[in-house]
Amino acid sequence: MKMKTLITGGTVVGPLGATPQDVLVDGETIAALYAPGAAAGVTADTMIDATGRYVVPGGVDVHTHMKLPFGGTFASDDFASGTKAAAWGGTTTIIDFAVQRTGEVVQDGLAAWHALADGNCAIDYGFHMIMGGVDDDALKAMDYLVAHEGITSFKLFMAYPGVFYSDDGQILRAMQKATDNGALIMMHAENGIAIDVLAAQAVARGQTDPIYHGITRPSALEGEATHRATVLAQVAGNTPLYFVHMSASEALAHVSAARSAGRNVFAETCPQYLYLTLEDQLGAPGFEGAKWVASPPLRPRDEPHRDDLWRGLRTDDLAVVSTDHCPFCFKDQKELGRGNFTKIPNGMGTVEHRMDLVYQGVATGKLSLERWVETCSTTPARMFGLYPKKGVIQPGSDADIVLYDPRATTTISAATHHMNIDHSAWEGFEIAGKVETVLSRGSVVVADGAFHGRSGHGQFLRRGLSQYLR
Amino acid sequence: MKMKTLITGGTVVGPLGATPQDVLVDGETIAALYAPGAAAGVTADTMIDATGRYVVPGGVDVHTHMKLPFGGTFASDDFASGTKAAAWGGTTTIIDFAVQRTGEVVQDGLAAWHALADGNCAIDYGFHMIMGGVDDDALKAMDYLVAHEGITSFKLFMAYPGVFYSDDGQILRAMQKATDNGALIMMHAENGIAIDVLAAQAVARGQTDPIYHGITRPSALEGEATHRATVLAQVAGNTPLYFVHMSASEALAHVSAARSAGRNVFAETCPQYLYLTLEDQLGAPGFEGAKWVASPPLRPRDEPHRDDLWRGLRTDDLAVVSTDHCPFCFKDQKELGRGNFTKIPNGMGTVEHRMDLVYQGVATGKLSLERWVETCSTTPARMFGLYPKKGVIQPGSDADIVLYDPRATTTISAATHHMNIDHSAWEGFEIAGKVETVLSRGSVVVADGAFHGRSGHGQFLRRGLSQYLR
Amino acid sequence: MKMKTLITGGTVVGPLGATPQDVLVDGETIAALYAPGAAAGVTADTMIDATGRYVVPGGVDVHTHMKLPFGGTFASDDFASGTKAAAWGGTTTIIDFAVQRTGEVVQDGLAAWHALADGNCAIDYGFHMIMGGVDDDALKAMDYLVAHEGITSFKLFMAYPGVFYSDDGQILRAMQKATDNGALIMMHAENGIAIDVLAAQAVARGQTDPIYHGITRPSALEGEATHRATVLAQVAGNTPLYFVHMSASEALAHVSAARSAGRNVFAETCPQYLYLTLEDQLGAPGFEGAKWVASPPLRPRDEPHRDDLWRGLRTDDLAVVSTDHCPFCFKDQKELGRGNFTKIPNGMGTVEHRMDLVYQGVATGKLSLERWVETCSTTPARMFGLYPKKGVIQPGSDADIVLYDPRATTTISAATHHMNIDHSAWEGFEIAGKVETVLSRGSVVVADGAFHGRSGHGQFLRRGLSQYLR
Amino acid sequence: MKMKTLITGGTVVGPLGATPQDVLVDGETIAALYAPGAAAGVTADTMIDATGRYVVPGGVDVHTHMKLPFGGTFASDDFASGTKAAAWGGTTTIIDFAVQRTGEVVQDGLAAWHALADGNCAIDYGFHMIMGGVDDDALKAMDYLVAHEGITSFKLFMAYPGVFYSDDGQILRAMQKATDNGALIMMHAENGIAIDVLAAQAVARGQTDPIYHGITRPSALEGEATHRATVLAQVAGNTPLYFVHMSASEALAHVSAARSAGRNVFAETCPQYLYLTLEDQLGAPGFEGAKWVASPPLRPRDEPHRDDLWRGLRTDDLAVVSTDHCPFCFKDQKELGRGNFTKIPNGMGTVEHRMDLVYQGVATGKLSLERWVETCSTTPARMFGLYPKKGVIQPGSDADIVLYDPRATTTISAATHHMNIDHSAWEGFEIAGKVETVLSRGSVVVADGAFHGRSGHGQFLRRGLSQYLR
Repeated sequence: MKMKTLITGGTVVGPLGATPQDVLVDGETIAALYAPGAAAGVTADTMIDATGRYVVPGGVDVHTHMKLPFGGTFASDDFASGTKAAAWGGTTTIIDFAVQRTGEVVQDGLAAWHALADGNCAIDYGFHMIMGGVDDDALKAMDYLVAHEGITSFKLFMAYPGVFYSDDGQILRAMQKATDNGALIMMHAENGIAIDVLAAQAVARGQTDPIYHGITRPSALEGEATHRATVLAQVAGNTPLYFVHMSASEALAHVSAARSAGRNVFAETCPQYLYLTLEDQLGAPGFEGAKWVASPPLRPRDEPHRDDLWRGLRTDDLAVVSTDHCPFCFKDQKELGRGNFTKIPNGMGTVEHRMDLVYQGVATGKLSLERWVETCSTTPARMFGLYPKKGVIQPGSDADIVLYDPRATTTISAATHHMNIDHSAWEGFEIAGKVETVLSRGSVVVADGAFHGRSGHGQFLRRGLSQYLR
Repeated sequence: MKMKTLITGGTVVGPLGATPQDVLVDGETIAALYAPGAAAGVTADTMIDATGRYVVPGGVDVHTHMKLPFGGTFASDDFASGTKAAAWGGTTTIIDFAVQRTGEVVQDGLAAWHALADGNCAIDYGFHMIMGGVDDDALKAMDYLVAHEGITSFKLFMAYPGVFYSDDGQILRAMQKATDNGALIMMHAENGIAIDVLAAQAVARGQTDPIYHGITRPSALEGEATHRATVLAQVAGNTPLYFVHMSASEALAHVSAARSAGRNVFAETCPQYLYLTLEDQLGAPGFEGAKWVASPPLRPRDEPHRDDLWRGLRTDDLAVVSTDHCPFCFKDQKELGRGNFTKIPNGMGTVEHRMDLVYQGVATGKLSLERWVETCSTTPARMFGLYPKKGVIQPGSDADIVLYDPRATTTISAATHHMNIDHSAWEGFEIAGKVETVLSRGSVVVADGAFHGRSGHGQFLRRGLSQYLR
Repeated sequence: MKMKTLITGGTVVGPLGATPQDVLVDGETIAALYAPGAAAGVTADTMIDATGRYVVPGGVDVHTHMKLPFGGTFASDDFASGTKAAAWGGTTTIIDFAVQRTGEVVQDGLAAWHALADGNCAIDYGFHMIMGGVDDDALKAMDYLVAHEGITSFKLFMAYPGVFYSDDGQILRAMQKATDNGALIMMHAENGIAIDVLAAQAVARGQTDPIYHGITRPSALEGEATHRATVLAQVAGNTPLYFVHMSASEALAHVSAARSAGRNVFAETCPQYLYLTLEDQLGAPGFEGAKWVASPPLRPRDEPHRDDLWRGLRTDDLAVVSTDHCPFCFKDQKELGRGNFTKIPNGMGTVEHRMDLVYQGVATGKLSLERWVETCSTTPARMFGLYPKKGVIQPGSDADIVLYDPRATTTISAATHHMNIDHSAWEGFEIAGKVETVLSRGSVVVADGAFHGRSGHGQFLRRGLSQYLR
Repeated sequence: MKMKTLITGGTVVGPLGATPQDVLVDGETIAALYAPGAAAGVTADTMIDATGRYVVPGGVDVHTHMKLPFGGTFASDDFASGTKAAAWGGTTTIIDFAVQRTGEVVQDGLAAWHALADGNCAIDYGFHMIMGGVDDDALKAMDYLVAHEGITSFKLFMAYPGVFYSDDGQILRAMQKATDNGALIMMHAENGIAIDVLAAQAVARGQTDPIYHGITRPSALEGEATHRATVLAQVAGNTPLYFVHMSASEALAHVSAARSAGRNVFAETCPQYLYLTLEDQLGAPGFEGAKWVASPPLRPRDEPHRDDLWRGLRTDDLAVVSTDHCPFCFKDQKELGRGNFTKIPNGMGTVEHRMDLVYQGVATGKLSLERWVETCSTTPARMFGLYPKKGVIQPGSDADIVLYDPRATTTISAATHHMNIDHSAWEGFEIAGKVETVLSRGSVVVADGAFHGRSGHGQFLRRGLSQYLR
């Protein structure tokens, strides 16, 4: 028997605006929306008073790496801990990356990730596929995954030679395939071949501290790879192309130019690139900066990257904010790179804080309330073929709903967060606003400062093709 | 007593997507939206079966000139005939231009336009104010109109010296005022001073046919004025700036650049610039081309303008499609310019066909269904401070609703249109799709091939500030 | 009887390089160049030892305003004092501006300037014509001046409404004429209509100090006018267009874009824009800043203008360095604007220091030795139709020759300069290098720290069309 | 005993202009230049009457491949035949490419090329070094060649994987080295990794005709590689960078942008890209198109490449015209690729026709006389450290002099050319103008339709660093 919940008195926020509406949930989905007063007489099993709250579609974090093997260790969140932390933060859908390594069968990689996630997730989840070894079989597998497995996005790396790296020929072939089957190519755009030269030279000079991770990955090389990928996509026949974790002004400029030309080119950024810097975090004294080693790296404070990224979020040249959640503990994990920054596992943990961190843009006047919801929920869902099931408060959609209290405040700390990491990249950040209540497919999973969800509630999402093309 | 109407079985279309929903109208507004099946048990006075139809928010045409005085005559549609024709075409809101001429009191111009419209409109309407003589009093009036009259957009002309023209100093002062009070500056961007030289030279050479109207207004001069206005807006403090009736690739490029830089710069185009050309229409044999004399003019067939404008609609560099509806009959009106193209009244009549003409972009794969609704209804409403009252199918919004049948076909002709013109700029255009049923504030005004509305139903809309800024 | 002079042992510098050559002057022109040693046996009346010196073509300053009437007073240098000062500084040719004011006959203005210069100049001189009132007669006069008077360049103003200002229609007509007769249009590109609004607003607010002269002429408005002029030139048929005294990055960017597109667009800058700033000079305490009031104004220190201008000189987007020499004494002249910056006569005196000031770019590594000669002598001569008579050390050319000692140093001061001004805009500037010996048409006019020339030696130069087009 | 030659009555042409001058040659160098009449009394062993002729500095062709091994065969011209043909065409200096292959010692490659050239050349010659295998030893060798061997330019390939190809890491390291030692990096910019995928796909589809050589090397991939190289040079510290054989509008746009930004980025094009097309030549019926197989390929006729390249020559975004002379006979050589375009040896033979072919731009109004000399003689000499020994008519320079008769006409044909090829890429081209007389270091090598030179006259040129940087 389906239970009904009526959320009244709140302000429903979507990409177009914020308006008072009441929301009727019936079972796992939204049954109706009412104008104020129009729900008089509607009965429900549960009534939620949302007065003074924003009622927003549950967050969709399209870039997480639970349990990712990297540099001889594994990301410290598994699907259980990571999705629970996500829920605490108002994210009700993640899309994680299944991995094919060179020489492996793509379907085997996918199966392995299904095994990791199945029965363990607190919220719904989907998979992209990392193509670590594009060859004839892998190309055929792309068709299969699109047609039969609900996997419609494939990630390639222009960085990490010898690990996930694809050369331009492999990239071109995968793009041609995506042009044919409609999939989206996701790109890690850094010129890894050049970067590895710079990194080796730095190590040879004894420059081994974490900050050299950033210095040897200059923003120009993210810009270069971004441009190159847009050209390869053009040669492949206007392949839909999505740049992950954009950090650099140069890269953004290439995306902006391609978009103005009407091309299907998109990009996301992550909170770390909006707030943190090479000097302030990565350059922290001693080995402390290791906490913020990720690729692309944090950028120099006095360069225009952060302002440009905020502007990109306003103009939609950056369509999505994801986290690139890939946590490693400081002890035993980050410490693998003491004395050699190239051995530090790459990644930070942010899945729990994305909605809060982007909302700070609203609180400080950098971003509209509408764009907050659009970049964190609606566009991610549309970009990756989940709309209207996810990303919107609308009759028929999944009842993934967050009540956000703009008047509350919180402070981020490893002492209180729910991610499985021994530190926080955001320690001490004061947040205006607070995720108060979270529903996942109609069930309350967070409320009253407690977690009411369960591992296994989350279902695998078979995704369609991107709904954001033009 | 309020009457209820339930629209069932249709596909509700908005900027984010198209989904099956049932719509409950209660009196003049939308009371509820339901998922399919969820409206079982809901009672209504009227049931409308929308099976197979798109259910879209009523069109918002933000650029009309009913009864505009021009060149010694008046636009041939008055508010009664023009708004009725608009309703026939699925447009349920117009924003017309009240006019202040040099030396006149702004409020007097507004009062005159209220007198023309009051009690005569079949659909809701608002006013922009044309500032034909920016001086100290006019600047003060801008504040008054924003604060007290619901007029939040002001149009200036860089063309028509001696008539509506403002020089760069007047433009700058009006922009400074708009920066202060939040209003939107609407700009007719053509370098009229240079154009008048070219036109006089052509007439002196005996080049008097209608096509010379286009030849003497080269696209480069629309581009120049567009750039100049963006700079003046920047000097005035990032004034919100909206270019009307954009026709030229050069102009679009300047808008695109300003937008990529994060500036509050916007533009509309009109159906005539998307479909018609200098050679094919303006260059029609004899004096026939006079039908298509408007400013800016139709552009050369072999230049990239039309393709670029369609691309601009896809990328949102063009946010709105309006009509610049300003009809003049061929007989006695257009004929005033026989032997001298500079005497031809400028304008075409399109208010009835906008939804159909832009939908042809959907039918031919140039534009998504979502962008059709967004450019014709939602963004116009948001741009000009009418959201969420207008432009969206949402609980609490006005029940301005169009049922559009994508399988029907029609043909445009002066013999059948409802505008008060003796010819059609679109004669013989075959249209895939048809406006079938139109509701204005809950009342059916068009259905079953008949008009059920009435003059005077339409109400004046006091508008707020633009909701499309960033 | 012609006298021969042999200059030996020096390094001849031109735009292509610096090489040891001996120079034989016979009468007023260069008779031969010799490889080292090859002049053995050549006899001459005078032998000049140039060992350790650069032997460079005499400077060509294409932008001076001797005795210009401005704001109720006159520039303080007349042709006698100004050309003598120029010679001291290694400049052997000036092109001054004859003036037509609105309503005046162009030929009358030219005659007036001939009367001022004739018999008074120490070096050769030519005229541009300022067109202060473009009308039918003035347009006809342009043809006459090109064909019969050796005047092939015409200056228009987009600034100074009511004084020299031309509107866009006048500009377009003059450009059309220049397209026909091959003349060069010189443009003062600032949006004077908008600037006058800003200036009046500042004065009304009591912001009357000299620095407000700069603040009310923002660089964006130089950029705007520059773009506008390039478009008008394009509409007029690719009219050769030369921007005077460029000071702003935005303007340079438009010139650079037009040049990359292959258009005949050129620009000059002046030493003041390369070295001086809004804050440091124009913002000097009290009324002191009046010394540096000129239009366009000095630009803000923290903006990129100066670096960009130096780069423009390297890339040839800036082809020429001129002085815009237009001196006014502080006492009685600059002081006219105490309490109201709009009344301060616009201009500085630099004609004596141009070669030295630009050479500092060489001394500090900002500019190559070749570009020093090219921007100060060769290109000015080619741009304005004086080549190969002027601007080059070559057989057959006028023997206008400067021996420059790169090892000497000097300091600029009003106490020692030869211009007729009671102060120096460059007071205390230390100069590496020194103009040692100057020949004008074969005559030594400066040597051994003394002036050996005479008023009346200088001849009027009838110029041909520009030799710098492409 | 040195012989003297006096060339009288001609018009000496250089980058700055054309002026009547007499030229005195004494031994191998130019001793003096005289104004007309000033050489009266000068005696010489030989008098050459240059009346009606252009007297221009001998051509400098900086891109030839004599005897290059490619695809199992060798370019059909050796240094004897190739330099003789060059002399016939008015080219008095070539810079050929010595080759290091992967694993080879750089100095060995250089020695091999010295062995091929030594004693065989009719004109002077230098070498660039192709770096086919950048590694630690090769990087050290770069320093040695700059310091001790007169080799100051090093060519890298982004095309030809497995043959000459360098990856981005190798390129970056070589660029860092060049930043240090001042050498110029020459780049073959095509994305060879992507191209090889496209070529293999075409062959697999049975598309084996010569035209597919062009279709599988799209201009976008030349543009991409060009952009990438400019970024790598920036990361390496503003390395001087010179793009060889530019053929594509996209590539030119990236060069133009880098140059406007003041970077030391340069490019050459070749006559084939200025005149010939994919359809007209490469797409000739049957296997005929093999004659024009070269990389990058001829570009599509209806794309803007050729017009853009001519414009680039005018704006100096293209600084040099070279030939990429690399001839293969049709019989037995080009025929190696029958049935598989990837097996066709890449190259055409043009060394004899460069001066004539570029002069056609002058004859047809596309290029100025000055730019003809500048792009074919002066800039090549300055770019590659040969100035003022080569590239200019000036006292002290080598007496490499061409008398060009602009009134004569010739027709190109394999029947009459002097290159060792069995066909001509230019068969039937009618040429306005004719190389009449050629001096190499003071010796007449071509005159009166006969060759008067000899193998072994030509000397190896130790070059300095580029003199074209800024």
